[in-house]
Amino acid sequence: MSSFRTDGEAALEWSARYLERIRELPVLAQVAPGELSAKLPASPPERAEPFSAVLADLDELIVPALTNWQHPRFFAYFANTGAEPGILAELLAATMNQVAIAWRASPASTELELRVVDWVRQLLGLPEGWHGHIEDTASTSTLAALIAARYVTGRNIVVCSEHAHSSVEKDARMLGMELRKVAVDGDLAMLVDGWDADEVACVVATVGTTSFASVDPVRALAERAHAAGAWLHVDAAYAGSSWLLEEERWSQDGCELADSLVVNPHKWLLVPMDCSLLWTSRPEDFRRAFSLVPEYLRTPDDAYALSDFGPALGRRFRSLKLWAVLRCYGADGLRAILREHVRLAELFASWVDGEPGWELVAPQRFSLVVFRLDAGDEENEALLERVNRSGEIFISHTKLGDRYVLRFAIGNARTTEADVRHAWDVLRREAAR
Amino acid sequence: MSSFRTDGEAALEWSARYLERIRELPVLAQVAPGELSAKLPASPPERAEPFSAVLADLDELIVPALTNWQHPRFFAYFANTGAEPGILAELLAATMNQVAIAWRASPASTELELRVVDWVRQLLGLPEGWHGHIEDTASTSTLAALIAARYVTGRNIVVCSEHAHSSVEKDARMLGMELRKVAVDGDLAMLVDGWDADEVACVVATVGTTSFASVDPVRALAERAHAAGAWLHVDAAYAGSSWLLEEERWSQDGCELADSLVVNPHKWLLVPMDCSLLWTSRPEDFRRAFSLVPEYLRTPDDAYALSDFGPALGRRFRSLKLWAVLRCYGADGLRAILREHVRLAELFASWVDGEPGWELVAPQRFSLVVFRLDAGDEENEALLERVNRSGEIFISHTKLGDRYVLRFAIGNARTTEADVRHAWDVLRREAAR
Repeated sequence: MSSFRTDGEAALEWSARYLERIRELPVLAQVAPGELSAKLPASPPERAEPFSAVLADLDELIVPALTNWQHPRFFAYFANTGAEPGILAELLAATMNQVAIAWRASPASTELELRVVDWVRQLLGLPEGWHGHIEDTASTSTLAALIAARYVTGRNIVVCSEHAHSSVEKDARMLGMELRKVAVDGDLAMLVDGWDADEVACVVATVGTTSFASVDPVRALAERAHAAGAWLHVDAAYAGSSWLLEEERWSQDGCELADSLVVNPHKWLLVPMDCSLLWTSRPEDFRRAFSLVPEYLRTPDDAYALSDFGPALGRRFRSLKLWAVLRCYGADGLRAILREHVRLAELFASWVDGEPGWELVAPQRFSLVVFRLDAGDEENEALLERVNRSGEIFISHTKLGDRYVLRFAIGNARTTEADVRHAWDVLRREAAR
Repeated sequence: MSSFRTDGEAALEWSARYLERIRELPVLAQVAPGELSAKLPASPPERAEPFSAVLADLDELIVPALTNWQHPRFFAYFANTGAEPGILAELLAATMNQVAIAWRASPASTELELRVVDWVRQLLGLPEGWHGHIEDTASTSTLAALIAARYVTGRNIVVCSEHAHSSVEKDARMLGMELRKVAVDGDLAMLVDGWDADEVACVVATVGTTSFASVDPVRALAERAHAAGAWLHVDAAYAGSSWLLEEERWSQDGCELADSLVVNPHKWLLVPMDCSLLWTSRPEDFRRAFSLVPEYLRTPDDAYALSDFGPALGRRFRSLKLWAVLRCYGADGLRAILREHVRLAELFASWVDGEPGWELVAPQRFSLVVFRLDAGDEENEALLERVNRSGEIFISHTKLGDRYVLRFAIGNARTTEADVRHAWDVLRREAAR
C-alpha cells in the first residue's frame, strides 16, 4: 500500500496544483487535431512503468490538449464546475468500485442513490413521490423516457420543439421512432397548437433550451399531451438546477404534470461529470419497460435494483459525489453560487445591451446571454474564433434563424465579476481588430 | 486550496485504509434492505458541513452497506478489480472534469481514448484498422451495436443464444426489435443451423457467457450472418480480456469477422467501473447511425467527436484510468495476473471434481467454475445463502436447465491460492451443516 499512498499524494498534489494554476492555462486547448495523437506511443507498454511516469506525461502531453472546463472564464456550451468535494468523492467511489447490478451487489450505492436524488427533488420543489435515479447524461435520460413512453403507449411518434436538444432527435433515431419538430413562437417557446397530437408517444418539452435558454409552455403541453394519451417528458437538464432559487421557479410551471423529467447536476450543480438525474411520476411504468432479471441475478432479497429504471445493468457509485457536494456546500451555499451566476449574466447582458455595435438577440434567461456583433455572420464567426484562440475566454455559438449568434454561459463556481468583465474586454478588443 | 489538500489527504488516507483492511470486511454486505435508508437523513442539509463529516459517515453508514467488490474472496458474478493506478486516475479525471461533446471540447480525452483503446486492440490481437471507443457498460455497447445493425440493414430482428447475456434481450426490447433465442448444443454453444437467418438485422455471438463462460462458434455464425446480410456482434465482455494470453486465443476464432465486438476492462482488466470497449470494423456505418451535429456544436476543426459512435453526447475522461492501468502494470504484468486467475480456477475445479458429493456441471473455462453440491436445488440455494451470509466469501448462482448451480468466478488481483482454498473450506464446512 505504500505505493498507493505515495502515488496518491503525488496525484493529489497534481490535482491541487492544476486547480490552483487553472487561471494560467488557456481556456480552449491551443492544439491542432492529431497533435496529441502524434506524441502518444503507437503501441502499449510491455513492461510496467511507475505512476510518476503517467503524472509526468499528464503535464507533458495531456494538459496542452485540455480544454479547461474548470477555468473560470469558460463560457461556452453550458459552463460547469467539478467541485472539490465531488472530485474527492470520485476517488472514494473508485476505491470502493461498486457495481450495482442488483441490490445485494451494492446496498450502499442503491440506497444512497435513491435518497440523495430525492434530496435534490426536495431542493428543486418537485412533487413528492416521484422516483429518481442517476444516468450518465441527458442523452441517456431522455432515451430512457422515450423507451418508457413507447412501451406504455404502444406508439412511435416523438414531438418536440425545433429548439429541443439534438439528443431528442438522436434518441428518436436510435430507437427507430418518428420525430416531429414543432415551430416556436416569438419567445422561442414551442407552439402548443397547430400540430397533430394523435398517436403521439411522447411530447418533449424543454425548460432552458441549449441555444437560447427558452422555456416551453410545459403546463399547456402536458395538458395537450395527456389529453391525447401521450407521455410528457421535460428536458430541464441545464435550467432545472435554477429551481433551487425561488425567483427562478416561474420556469417550473406545469412540471408537476410531467411523466418524466431530467436535470443534470454535472451542468449547473457543481457535480463532476457524469451525473444526470431522471425522475418519473410513473415508476411502475418504467419498471415494466426496463425490468428484466435473469436467473443469475435473482436473489431472495426483498429489494429492487436501479437497473429496473434505465438501460444499463452495471452502475457505478455516482451518488457519492452528489452526496458530497450537497453536504459540503449545503443548499444555501449552492443557492448563493447560482444566484451570483444569474446576476453576472444580467450584468453581462446589460453591458452588451448598452454598447453601440452589439445586440442581444434573445432575452437573458438563467445564466445564458445570447448576443452578436452588429455585423455579418462571417465577422461574428471570425470574432468567435479569435477570442477562443486567445485562450483568455472560451465561448460558443448557435444560429437564430439563419443568423450566426454568440452564446455566453456562466456556470463555473470560480467565475467572478472580474472574469466576466475580462471576457467583455476581450470581446470588444478582438471585435475592434 | 488548503481545504482541498487537507480534505484530499483525509480522503486518500481513507482509501488506503479501506484497501488495507479489505480482508477484515465481510464480502457480502450484512445488512437488510432499507437498513441504510433508515439511517440517512430524509432531507438535504441547508448549511454546509465539513468534508470530514462525509468521511465519518462513510465509515458509520456506507461501509456496513457495501458489498466489497475489492475483496479478494469476492467470487460472485464476474469478480473484478479497481486497481490503484485506475483509482488515482479517476481522481485526476474528476479534477480535469472534461466533457468531450466535441473534439475542441476535449482534444485530450478524444485522442487519448482512441489511442489507448487501440492499445488494447493490439494486446488482444484484434484486427488492425478497427475503430474502438469507450462506453459505460456492455449493455450500452451492445445497444449501440444493435442500433447500428438496424440502421444499416433496415431490419428489425436480433438473434442470440438462449445463454446470451440478459442485456441483449433488454436492448432489443428497448429498441422495439424482435428477439429470437436459439438453442445451444452440448457445449452450451449456440447452434449455427436450425434457425431462420432471413431478415435478421444482427446475430449476437457470445465468447464467455455469463452463466457458464461457454463460447459460441463465432466463425460459423459470422459466415451465416453475413451470407444472410446480417450484422455480427460479439459479446466478449468478460472473456475478451483473456486474449491477452496466447493460450486463450482459441476462443477468438472467427472474431476477426465481427462487425462489432465488446470487451469490458472493468470486468477482467483491472480498470475501475465503468469502462466498456466497443470496436467496429465498420466505423462509417456507426457514424451514419449516430452522427448528428447540431449548430451549437459545429466547429471549423477538422476532427471528429466520439459521440459520433455511440448514444451519449457528453463523455467523461474514461480513457485516463485505462491508460494508467495499462502503463502501471504493463502487458506482462496484466498477463501474469490473468494467467494466475485461470490457474486458480483450474485448481478449484480440480478440487470440486475430486471431492465426493460435489460435481462440476460445466467445463471450467477462463476463470469461472460452475458446480454444485450433489443434492437438491433447495440445498444448493440454502448453501449459497449460508456461505454468503458468513461474509467470508461471496459467490452467485445460475440455472442449467432446471437445476440450480453455483458459480465461482475469479477476477480480483488480490486473490491468492490461500483465498481460493479458504473458499473451498467454507463451502465444505457449510455444506456439512
